[in-house]
Amino acid sequence: MTYRFKPPLIYVHGGAGRWKVDEETKLKVLKCLGEAAITGYEALVRGCAVDGVVEAVRFLEDSGLFNAGIGSVLTVKGTIEMDAGLMDGRSLKAGAVACVSRVKNPILLARIVLEKTDHVLIVGDSAEELARVYGLEKFKGPLPKRVERYRELINKLDEVKYWKKLKELVKLLGIEVGGTVGAVAVDSDGNVAAASSTGGVWLKLPGRIGDTPIPGAGFYADNRVGAATATGLGEYIVLYGLSRKVVEYMSNGLNPVSACIKAIEELSRVFERGSAGVIAVDVNGFIGSGFNTNAMPRAVMSKDLHNPITIFSRERNI
Amino acid sequence: MTYRFKPPLIYVHGGAGRWKVDEETKLKVLKCLGEAAITGYEALVRGCAVDGVVEAVRFLEDSGLFNAGIGSVLTVKGTIEMDAGLMDGRSLKAGAVACVSRVKNPILLARIVLEKTDHVLIVGDSAEELARVYGLEKFKGPLPKRVERYRELINKLDEVKYWKKLKELVKLLGIEVGGTVGAVAVDSDGNVAAASSTGGVWLKLPGRIGDTPIPGAGFYADNRVGAATATGLGEYIVLYGLSRKVVEYMSNGLNPVSACIKAIEELSRVFERGSAGVIAVDVNGFIGSGFNTNAMPRAVMSKDLHNPITIFSRERNI
Repeated sequence: MTYRFKPPLIYVHGGAGRWKVDEETKLKVLKCLGEAAITGYEALVRGCAVDGVVEAVRFLEDSGLFNAGIGSVLTVKGTIEMDAGLMDGRSLKAGAVACVSRVKNPILLARIVLEKTDHVLIVGDSAEELARVYGLEKFKGPLPKRVERYRELINKLDEVKYWKKLKELVKLLGIEVGGTVGAVAVDSDGNVAAASSTGGVWLKLPGRIGDTPIPGAGFYADNRVGAATATGLGEYIVLYGLSRKVVEYMSNGLNPVSACIKAIEELSRVFERGSAGVIAVDVNGFIGSGFNTNAMPRAVMSKDLHNPITIFSRERNI
Repeated sequence: MTYRFKPPLIYVHGGAGRWKVDEETKLKVLKCLGEAAITGYEALVRGCAVDGVVEAVRFLEDSGLFNAGIGSVLTVKGTIEMDAGLMDGRSLKAGAVACVSRVKNPILLARIVLEKTDHVLIVGDSAEELARVYGLEKFKGPLPKRVERYRELINKLDEVKYWKKLKELVKLLGIEVGGTVGAVAVDSDGNVAAASSTGGVWLKLPGRIGDTPIPGAGFYADNRVGAATATGLGEYIVLYGLSRKVVEYMSNGLNPVSACIKAIEELSRVFERGSAGVIAVDVNGFIGSGFNTNAMPRAVMSKDLHNPITIFSRERNI
């Protein structure tokens, strides 16, 4: 069974992961995703698909509930390095930033790369320079709860070499991977867009870039087909090219549900450790998701809904 | 018509571009590519496909004839920022670096990312730190001819704002885009690998990352099918996912020549300014290339050849 909604429509997620949280947190997460969907929807109605996904992701970056924006996790050195990207299905143009630490909303900086440069991906200090020039708000430092968690993790690491392979670290520490945020949207003119934002993976090496800021991996949008955005262990999502693959499968006639599930199954088969999730929308308003983790909280809002629908895991085939 | 060679085989290129050069330069370029093919071939025979592509690319980085390694072009700020990546078709693992300026051979650092970390792409200072730890040779500064050319270009730029869109810069200055180097190989065990290395585009913004270090865009390898590596204006190659697309087309039954040509035609149709080229090899030893520029000098060496075959543009359907 597939669900279809009337555009304008927006679909957001808060990351594929284990999400072993209590009921209260679960409700808080879903409430926040619903609010992000409404915020994005309002921007979508006033503007276009790109406005919708950017505003939804910006809301999630500012919430502190996810691994993005002010909620970003820390690198192995205790620093913050955020990545974000977006793609406009109308122009097939993308903008993305990686390894930025002094910007409150990386998704806004990704939009500046899209609109003000002819590059697709700009990283580090040079990206920060663009943020300064365009007067973006500054990042005020990580959340105290993230710093505490970092101290817990890093204290177990005395015996671990700095560049010990990440999978060993993840196994050793039972680190929660995920919490990246993303959004896809269709506006009333049939334009689609996708956006994603993340702080990366706990204790990543500084300078590491995952799927989030890479077109075709973390996000993809094409007005002829639809849009998708991904979450999970970025290394594998880049190698597999998850978001482009979902759009390709939709272009070959699969509905978004089947396209997402097929791509996730394929990725899981090729990469044993490839925790991943993806959401997608096609230009006709069909939506779908797929993930190989316990949960991937998400929310959808559209013209024919009074309130957003929120889903934590697999309660509905959306 | 398609050409098949007996593995071990290696196929290298020196970048798709206008290549408006005199006969002497043309011969020098082809001689160097032939030597790179021999160097890669010898490493391939002693070792595996990954050894072959790494050594061929390292040779080209050190030649100073291409836009990679010591021949890298300069950013708009007059700095050097090199990118490189490689993929092992056996493990489907990739390693890549971007925005490195203090390493003589970025391709060797990409191999360290592949082998010593569980990340795929590491950029900037943190990548340089890995280079230091593993004792890689340092970059000695740009070639005098690159610095001269930079001064010529930058002096015409007084009226151009720093982040003026790149396409305007390219149009304004008639800047030569290309000269990225790459290699694909099949070893005697049927393993394939792909590698690429570049200094980027003249006067790029610092921090800009193109296709070269991005798996699926600048390079891709899969033992079940073959390997490909791309060159050209990276922004479009990333959006299109050129190297993965060529491998997918081969996986669907196209020979490497048809796969490369089809992908380049498609990319050119979607992105008007998408100057690009790609070379590919399949696991059976068939090779092919495609480019929408004047030329893409390249060379192939294999078990059944006494000397490398070199091709400047479209003299042969290889």
